[in-house]
Amino acid sequence: MFSVQTYQDRRAVLQSNVAGGILLFLGNIENPVNFEHNPYYFRQDSTFLYYLGIQEPKIAAIIDIDENKTIVFGDELSIDDIVWMGRQETLKEKSLKSGVQETLPYDELSTYVRKAQDSGRKVHYLPPYQSSNKILLSDLLGIKIAELQPSVEMIKAVVKQRSVKEAQEIVQIEQAVNVSNEMHLLAMRIAKPGVKEYEIANAIQHLAGNKECPMSYPPIVTINGGILHNHYRLNTLKNGDLFLNDSGAETAMGYAGDLTRTFPVSNAFSTKQKEIYEIVLNAFENAQRLLRPGIPFKDIHLKASQHLVEGLIDLGLMKGNSEEAVKNNAHTLFFQCGLGHMMGLDVHDMEDLGEQYVGYTEGEPKDTQTFGLKSLRLGKSLESGFVVTVEPGIYIIPELIDIWQAENKNADFINYDRVNEYRDFGGVRIEDDFLITSDGYRLLGNGLIKTVEEIENYRTEHLA
Amino acid sequence: MFSVQTYQDRRAVLQSNVAGGILLFLGNIENPVNFEHNPYYFRQDSTFLYYLGIQEPKIAAIIDIDENKTIVFGDELSIDDIVWMGRQETLKEKSLKSGVQETLPYDELSTYVRKAQDSGRKVHYLPPYQSSNKILLSDLLGIKIAELQPSVEMIKAVVKQRSVKEAQEIVQIEQAVNVSNEMHLLAMRIAKPGVKEYEIANAIQHLAGNKECPMSYPPIVTINGGILHNHYRLNTLKNGDLFLNDSGAETAMGYAGDLTRTFPVSNAFSTKQKEIYEIVLNAFENAQRLLRPGIPFKDIHLKASQHLVEGLIDLGLMKGNSEEAVKNNAHTLFFQCGLGHMMGLDVHDMEDLGEQYVGYTEGEPKDTQTFGLKSLRLGKSLESGFVVTVEPGIYIIPELIDIWQAENKNADFINYDRVNEYRDFGGVRIEDDFLITSDGYRLLGNGLIKTVEEIENYRTEHLA
Repeated sequence: MFSVQTYQDRRAVLQSNVAGGILLFLGNIENPVNFEHNPYYFRQDSTFLYYLGIQEPKIAAIIDIDENKTIVFGDELSIDDIVWMGRQETLKEKSLKSGVQETLPYDELSTYVRKAQDSGRKVHYLPPYQSSNKILLSDLLGIKIAELQPSVEMIKAVVKQRSVKEAQEIVQIEQAVNVSNEMHLLAMRIAKPGVKEYEIANAIQHLAGNKECPMSYPPIVTINGGILHNHYRLNTLKNGDLFLNDSGAETAMGYAGDLTRTFPVSNAFSTKQKEIYEIVLNAFENAQRLLRPGIPFKDIHLKASQHLVEGLIDLGLMKGNSEEAVKNNAHTLFFQCGLGHMMGLDVHDMEDLGEQYVGYTEGEPKDTQTFGLKSLRLGKSLESGFVVTVEPGIYIIPELIDIWQAENKNADFINYDRVNEYRDFGGVRIEDDFLITSDGYRLLGNGLIKTVEEIENYRTEHLA
Repeated sequence: MFSVQTYQDRRAVLQSNVAGGILLFLGNIENPVNFEHNPYYFRQDSTFLYYLGIQEPKIAAIIDIDENKTIVFGDELSIDDIVWMGRQETLKEKSLKSGVQETLPYDELSTYVRKAQDSGRKVHYLPPYQSSNKILLSDLLGIKIAELQPSVEMIKAVVKQRSVKEAQEIVQIEQAVNVSNEMHLLAMRIAKPGVKEYEIANAIQHLAGNKECPMSYPPIVTINGGILHNHYRLNTLKNGDLFLNDSGAETAMGYAGDLTRTFPVSNAFSTKQKEIYEIVLNAFENAQRLLRPGIPFKDIHLKASQHLVEGLIDLGLMKGNSEEAVKNNAHTLFFQCGLGHMMGLDVHDMEDLGEQYVGYTEGEPKDTQTFGLKSLRLGKSLESGFVVTVEPGIYIIPELIDIWQAENKNADFINYDRVNEYRDFGGVRIEDDFLITSDGYRLLGNGLIKTVEEIENYRTEHLA
């Protein structure tokens, strides 16, 4: 945990940004796998961690703005519990560590909420994502799940605060990134013909686990990098495959890392692989250099798309004017998703609170229609203190090629004959995590090899 | 998956055991960790696996008894999904593998249920344990979550069927047990002073993962074996500690293993450790020999308790008559829990369906009041085809000793002075998995070392 002062300060700022009423924070529970007492590993809600820091299932908290106090709701262990679970720090003790003086039994939560409602005070709450908290909110507020109305005022206040990272949060994120770096180096040392994808996933998870770090998301470790949401891991690596590893760890406090590297299973990139890789790397490096406060991330996304197109024109897969091609969305045959997203206590930071608040503004709303842009999680102007990922890629998706070609879509910009020579290519993505500084950006963590030469040398050295 | 015939036969049997109406099966979803699109690993509901075998989130099925047909409800991938997730086997194809001819879109589920209700037919469903399915059932049936009434008729029919394992299920369970055996041997090779508990948990999980086996439950890997529900794993092993490893794998099809071994972190057991260990081992071996169809598992539990008491009397921690001691529940100062439970597609098989149906009968109901017995998950008479764990233990819980001693509880049977010499002892448990055969029992899997000599020799050999 951070200092008592940290949590007190954070709550004070939040309180000052909401007009009045009570702010309700629901912690997560231990979610059942196949029966109630066989749970998944526990992960506290990130906003709860941010304001209270308490890692404990089935607790809640209220910041009572009108009465200027915070209460943690939860049940202390009974003597029966202690017999089964051993002596542990009490909830009272844990609460004091985040500067909360008052704790009440969990059952008192509904009484407190009901009283606030009865006296006409506003009850603010965030959008629930776990079903247990949907049920709880419905019970607490006496309204149907479908009619829950999270507080936009509270969402905006939380997003404003969590978007700008404190120095101590950056330290945490860099720890996560450095563990993630090691995971990626390990993958580069063990990925070779005959190895199964899941063996690499297991090995990097083991490495992170031994540093007390869970995965920050289900790793994508695949020889089919062209499949964007790929959690199938039963393939066997073979010479000629491109291996894409999108994985990251999170610290015990919950801060995430998120990195992607792509490399050949053979000792060296083939010419085709190298050419595409260099295009992505060039787009990556150009995007990185654009990072600074004030620039809309959407502009960097479009600029990166243009760099990809330029490379693909040089290679003969695209043609025409690169700027026109991007305007016509022709790049989305190869780059169907977004350039990056916010990162922090969540790998897609605050995604539970809503992209329209986290990644966009009312003045610059999200384009939810256009293929490509509708998958861009972050569009708004960057600010000093933001942490973002940059992750351009080129993905060859045979199904998408077939659809476009059947419509002769964007034929002015795409050489379908040439594209079809790449049908089995797979995908390349390169991803790092950056802090936006007052005058630009800083790469987070100690840095991870990414040029063709670096990767080939590293693998030659370690695969012997 | 098993053969098409297997699933058809299972459904036919179930159908024949319920009078009429429709049987509703809800699959599990991908549960969110910290936001909707960052899920825990997917685990299908076990009853769904048993009757349909389809490993896929967000599907459901209905066996319409009156119309003698089965329908799977779920959505086929759209072309958009295929672009992001790649081509996959269709739901139609998957359903055919379990002999289901008819699939309908997920949205049709509520229509089908509503129609059945409207025509006065009974809608049978099982107790939901995941919150998402509580919400779904409430929506489907138009009643409040608190008012859901699972079908006892369906529960009993499912329990009856799933309790008696098919030969092909035993093969699966033995695969799980054999992977679990390897996990335990690995732990015995790597557990030494200076190692952290979580490093052992990570290593055994890695081993199982590389055999495509998830953990069947969160492993208990601890130097504080006296704490029964212990998932704290930050301790460092040191000479003199007893290490307790309660862990098991499940196969890709969902069948579980569940084993416990306890061994010293030093090269050899201390005298104290050895003496207690031998008592538990003796109780274990005697309990194992009692396994046969027709004997109530509760009797074996009580007999094992008596064997523990006899050993503790020899050691001077208890006194008096062992049978009387057990009648007075004096053994529960050391053995607070149950001797074992059913195992199958769940490590506590069918625990979601209710212990009163799985582990007990109306004629032999569970004792829910008495300390000790209230934690015994299985009491009823064993049948050929049951798979059960046997897991006696001695647990030294200082908090419990203090409570009992303050009340001078069972002072006729307990030598508190002597017991207090063991306050820091920890706990010992030995657990294996057994099939009840027509004339007795069979140890499942290839067998795992468990005598003092075997364990000391194995560790001496591998820790060098």
